[in-house]
Amino acid sequence: MNEPTKILLDESELPRRWYNVLADLPSPPPPVLHPGTLQPVGPDDLAPLFPMDLILQEVATDRYVDIPADVLDVYKLWRPSPLYRAHRLEKALGTPAKIFYKYEGVSPAGSHKPNTAVPQAYYNAAAGIRRLTTETGAGQWGTALAFACSQYGLDCEVWQVRASYDQKPYRKIMIETFGGVIHPSPSDLTAAGRAVLAAHPDSPGSLGIAISEAVEVAAQNPDTNYALGSVLNHVLLHQTVIGEEAIAQFAKVGLAPDVIVGCTGGGSNFGGLAFPFLREKLAGRMDVTIRAVEPASCPSLTKGVYAYDFGDTAGMTPLMKMHTLGHDFIPDPIHAGGLRYHGMSPLISHVYELGLIEAVSKTQRECFEAGVRFARTEGIVPAPEPTHALAACVEEALRCKETGEEKVILTALCGHGHLDLAAYGAYLAGDLVDHELSETEVASAVAALPKVPA
Amino acid sequence: MNEPTKILLDESELPRRWYNVLADLPSPPPPVLHPGTLQPVGPDDLAPLFPMDLILQEVATDRYVDIPADVLDVYKLWRPSPLYRAHRLEKALGTPAKIFYKYEGVSPAGSHKPNTAVPQAYYNAAAGIRRLTTETGAGQWGTALAFACSQYGLDCEVWQVRASYDQKPYRKIMIETFGGVIHPSPSDLTAAGRAVLAAHPDSPGSLGIAISEAVEVAAQNPDTNYALGSVLNHVLLHQTVIGEEAIAQFAKVGLAPDVIVGCTGGGSNFGGLAFPFLREKLAGRMDVTIRAVEPASCPSLTKGVYAYDFGDTAGMTPLMKMHTLGHDFIPDPIHAGGLRYHGMSPLISHVYELGLIEAVSKTQRECFEAGVRFARTEGIVPAPEPTHALAACVEEALRCKETGEEKVILTALCGHGHLDLAAYGAYLAGDLVDHELSETEVASAVAALPKVPA
Repeated sequence: MNEPTKILLDESELPRRWYNVLADLPSPPPPVLHPGTLQPVGPDDLAPLFPMDLILQEVATDRYVDIPADVLDVYKLWRPSPLYRAHRLEKALGTPAKIFYKYEGVSPAGSHKPNTAVPQAYYNAAAGIRRLTTETGAGQWGTALAFACSQYGLDCEVWQVRASYDQKPYRKIMIETFGGVIHPSPSDLTAAGRAVLAAHPDSPGSLGIAISEAVEVAAQNPDTNYALGSVLNHVLLHQTVIGEEAIAQFAKVGLAPDVIVGCTGGGSNFGGLAFPFLREKLAGRMDVTIRAVEPASCPSLTKGVYAYDFGDTAGMTPLMKMHTLGHDFIPDPIHAGGLRYHGMSPLISHVYELGLIEAVSKTQRECFEAGVRFARTEGIVPAPEPTHALAACVEEALRCKETGEEKVILTALCGHGHLDLAAYGAYLAGDLVDHELSETEVASAVAALPKVPA
Repeated sequence: MNEPTKILLDESELPRRWYNVLADLPSPPPPVLHPGTLQPVGPDDLAPLFPMDLILQEVATDRYVDIPADVLDVYKLWRPSPLYRAHRLEKALGTPAKIFYKYEGVSPAGSHKPNTAVPQAYYNAAAGIRRLTTETGAGQWGTALAFACSQYGLDCEVWQVRASYDQKPYRKIMIETFGGVIHPSPSDLTAAGRAVLAAHPDSPGSLGIAISEAVEVAAQNPDTNYALGSVLNHVLLHQTVIGEEAIAQFAKVGLAPDVIVGCTGGGSNFGGLAFPFLREKLAGRMDVTIRAVEPASCPSLTKGVYAYDFGDTAGMTPLMKMHTLGHDFIPDPIHAGGLRYHGMSPLISHVYELGLIEAVSKTQRECFEAGVRFARTEGIVPAPEPTHALAACVEEALRCKETGEEKVILTALCGHGHLDLAAYGAYLAGDLVDHELSETEVASAVAALPKVPA
């Protein structure tokens, strides 16, 4: 173990710009469409919800976007994040592979989410906005946005899916500790929420309903905007600090990854780590396999269709071409709440269609098995989402054990599981159920896709 | 903000030895006494519970003890820990003071506890021990020992106070995730537990009962030892990596603290940070005020007596001369569970008697107010224990604001509060009650101290 356990960067080595993968792709992704006109949306269509700086980033084709100094200052509270060499996991597996993990759990919210929450809050504050609204499921994104708003003096109002609100009181308290206001959704504060409550007074809520409530409040109040934690181009753009740092960290030890594995829900953590490496691959400077890992119960990339669909369940967003299981698909209540999304970032989808990345799916018990093994060797209890990446990492490392290959594997460890321990309790008690989505279930789920002429 | 936010050390700068403050004190502390004979205890008295390496460290007078290579390798999973400059807290307070905090929440258990859990597990494993037993209250120590045992292939068995076991299921799950076995105390697994249950079938338990159970199992099984997370000399010795790193980190920015504030329960986090600085002070190389902060409802240093007392409630341990409120004192159920100890480390007590450190007390609402302010500025939700240090830090920084002094303040931030969010919920809901222990209550509490001839 003479090689370092942690590869650290100094604050002076923090990336100064985000990377826009669009600049290097052989073709652009299909345009986002207005659901009424089926014409490409323009900046003005998005102006009621987002500040112009973010809208311009959403459609930018420049290779790099400078990170504002005020954002860098807040990033320094936890960035650059460490790149770890998993000496102890390697030893436990008996693999000749070199396993590395880029750990985003050091952030205030405990995940990669603040990487975009901070610039989103910054640009909104700079545009004179006073309040941000958003939805949250398990609560990672709501926590990140509440923290980011506290840094720029913005109010933050979060609609959390009622079922999670009731089941995960710690997330609610953490959001309040950062100064955010949180409502269970459906709420009686919006027309959308009241309509649901009128029909279903005991509704457990859904991400789709919570989005509708947050968007409604933002659209109706000029001093209020809306913020989204994944899927969109500007969100993935902000997350590329992860991959840029990792490249610099590998350079310090004279290595480069042969395989990258990361979990995909909406795609922001995966894209953030993978895109800078994809740039290196496209330029012929690296030969790296990039592999997305998704839950077998919500396999948008591996079993979904590539088609125009709504980003939300209620069908209020623009239409995006992406890998989807259908916008009214309700995934199993698996514990990796951040991966329970019917669709996939259009950018990730496009890159997958281009054959630039691979995708596999994993069932949750295999994932938690990898998570527990990781905790007992490396000392970090991972969030349920990155246990998917860890399961794929273990699989690759054991493959190397068979072949004798000394591959360098890079794993995206996008957050800790301190607020997800109930999931580990269920796994350790043997209470978890696996469900691999069948072709029949997929066919049924995608039947309701909106009709868009080719 | 051109000065760095985080001052990091490379792994190669990890301290290679622990510091023993005994070597530099003007007089030794009074001996620990056998409760039956009232004679000083010898190594053989401790051999049924501890391996000889730790017993020798407990009585060592050498200035330094080398850290074994296998311990350093595990330390590298999170050490050196970062020293932060609290730019944003300073700005929010409008103080000319420079505030720094040494953050131990980056460890696997989320606190400073693994600094000693790891070497304790290592020395026990090296001595051929197969299992460690311990007690835990809120759960920080049990988590740390379970993690440490997982690193050296030891079984770990934890007796957790029944009230905490029922109220804090996440801690139980985290201990199990690290491979530990956890029992609510009182349990029917020990004579001590069965005796309590016979008299009080619904007993909520206490730290004293849990210690009795863990000690009983260790004493009766040759392959099993017992481990303690604070109070003892060897525990504080292991924690000095905190202060040694901080000294090296301050040297990197050409500064030294004028004031150090840290919370004290059993004293291990405070001693770990403060003792290396005390060495510098005693040698005339630094002029630093060192201030212990304790809860107003459990003020052993500021209101207790300096006398021989038992370390546990049941009166089974050797007698230690320390600041105590009496071994049968039951502190209010404040949320800083780690500070609810009737006594104080004999080393800290001795140093306090020598006039080398100061002590103050704080009520819990002032502490949580400081904790919330810290979260909203610095992004870290502190554990309830270090909010005591933060309250004293804020007080000192506001004093500097009045006087215009640009003091350098160093705060011990010994852990995060991710598993203590219920306490923040109670604070934010206005449900917390303050209780400053009165002189009458103290007098009543210390009336039952054991009689030891001077």
